[in-house]
Amino acid sequence: MNRIYIKEIKNKIGEEVKLAGWVDVRRDHGKLIFIDLRDMSGKAQMVALPNHKEAHDNASKLRSEWVVEIIGKVNKRPEKMINKNEELGEVEVEITEVKILSEAEIPFEKDAATNLDTHLDNLPLTLRTEKAKAVFKVQAEIVKAFREFLNQENFTEFQAPKLIGEDAEGGANSFDVTYFKHIAHLAQSPQLYKQIMVGVFEKVFAVGNVYRAEKHSTTRHLNEYTSLDMEMGFIQDHTDIMRMENRLLKFVMDALKESCGKEFEFLKATVPEVPENTIRFRFYFHNAFPDGKKAFLYTRRRK
Amino acid sequence: MNRIYIKEIKNKIGEEVKLAGWVDVRRDHGKLIFIDLRDMSGKAQMVALPNHKEAHDNASKLRSEWVVEIIGKVNKRPEKMINKNEELGEVEVEITEVKILSEAEIPFEKDAATNLDTHLDNLPLTLRTEKAKAVFKVQAEIVKAFREFLNQENFTEFQAPKLIGEDAEGGANSFDVTYFKHIAHLAQSPQLYKQIMVGVFEKVFAVGNVYRAEKHSTTRHLNEYTSLDMEMGFIQDHTDIMRMENRLLKFVMDALKESCGKEFEFLKATVPEVPENTIRFRFYFHNAFPDGKKAFLYTRRRK
Repeated sequence: MNRIYIKEIKNKIGEEVKLAGWVDVRRDHGKLIFIDLRDMSGKAQMVALPNHKEAHDNASKLRSEWVVEIIGKVNKRPEKMINKNEELGEVEVEITEVKILSEAEIPFEKDAATNLDTHLDNLPLTLRTEKAKAVFKVQAEIVKAFREFLNQENFTEFQAPKLIGEDAEGGANSFDVTYFKHIAHLAQSPQLYKQIMVGVFEKVFAVGNVYRAEKHSTTRHLNEYTSLDMEMGFIQDHTDIMRMENRLLKFVMDALKESCGKEFEFLKATVPEVPENTIRFRFYFHNAFPDGKKAFLYTRRRK
Repeated sequence: MNRIYIKEIKNKIGEEVKLAGWVDVRRDHGKLIFIDLRDMSGKAQMVALPNHKEAHDNASKLRSEWVVEIIGKVNKRPEKMINKNEELGEVEVEITEVKILSEAEIPFEKDAATNLDTHLDNLPLTLRTEKAKAVFKVQAEIVKAFREFLNQENFTEFQAPKLIGEDAEGGANSFDVTYFKHIAHLAQSPQLYKQIMVGVFEKVFAVGNVYRAEKHSTTRHLNEYTSLDMEMGFIQDHTDIMRMENRLLKFVMDALKESCGKEFEFLKATVPEVPENTIRFRFYFHNAFPDGKKAFLYTRRRK
């Protein structure tokens, strides 16, 4: 029997299926043992009954995050057992066979708020939460939409080196790398390479990690992050870039609305609105000087 | 007037157009000055006639790789002047205005074969050749197709850190990075992170640079290269991976055939054929030992 994804059981009522995934939670009621099984597609409830003795024994051993293969029969739940809050809350799987693929030990209480050290020390486990998954999903969708838009606009993607001889940009500090008998640096930006490639393809972009050797104590600064970079030639002025960026941001946010609604809801966040047109400002000056020169006073957004 | 791409002039016969790009070659016949102008979309011939004096004077100053804006009228070439080898060989632009955006100096003879040092010292110029562009175009298409296939197969892309505490893999040597008061390393592979992320999303991939601190004197070894990495959970055995890789390679090669025909032709290369099914081997053994143990002799591809 081939393994199917958990979300497919909705259409397999009455059939025997083979599933694989992680034990999300085990609730042991003695005779009845409930297992919430999770895979990349979703989560569903499995139940082990005493009449399948071996499966029941195995199910009683399971703990959160153990990796298992389960064979069982998909049943529609009785009316009063239906859980409307779960996507697969109308079905459950009656377990006939449990195969333990891998045990796991969680060195903290599952679902408890962990402090930063515990979180970082246990990423293989802490990244499995809905919240962490939502962050990674949104990241993946942003990068995907960024590339999709720029490909549509005939930009060419290229791979920029990060191991460089000199600083690509002034400003930020760079990390030193021992490069055989020399000192090399980690690039703070693909700027130089983008400019070279504009001479080749006119419109280019790069997605890659960049490095800033700055000490920090906030989560808003990072020594290493993924930078989304574009560069285009033959512009008239900065408003060409602003218009392109505006359309790019709108495309990315529209993609997020379409594909990450659930994730934003879970993160209690909303996808930012991008105005149809670039923001324009009106500049206000004051006749400040005797020679007629004006002093800059303030800007106000133009309607 | 808005600038249009050079390839668009085909449909603008009789019209005035504004173009921008690089001087590919200038041929000065005295009265007639021919300029081959190149932009991201293609290349076409422009001609400056003495009756547009200022444009003619400016055109006479131009040299290869200067960046210019040209206004002119698109004409159909007389029958005997048509160049069937060029995509835009049936038209030319009669120059009425030349604006020099940037001069350029090439410290070697254009189109001459450069040695490796000259090539590397002058990448902003040497990468503009058809050959170099073809290589970058093929690279971009491979990465694009790789991602497209894996996204279709519900793999999740993630950004792996390259700045790591310990070696991610044994084998290859790593570069040391001075990380404030510590020594960090450049990752030789995203292996560890892929395995963590398989526990989160089951099917994941990463595209990013990796580092091998090995001296080399061939162009087949690199200290830094872009690695295309995938990892999937819940496989039965290695043949699951082989089948997935086979389909992936087929998808990538099909994409190259579709989008990079011109580039492969230029590089005098052919896109590799990927068999429909994974290659299987038959193993041949020999009764070599008195205790009945067999020695491995050879493999032969199974039909």
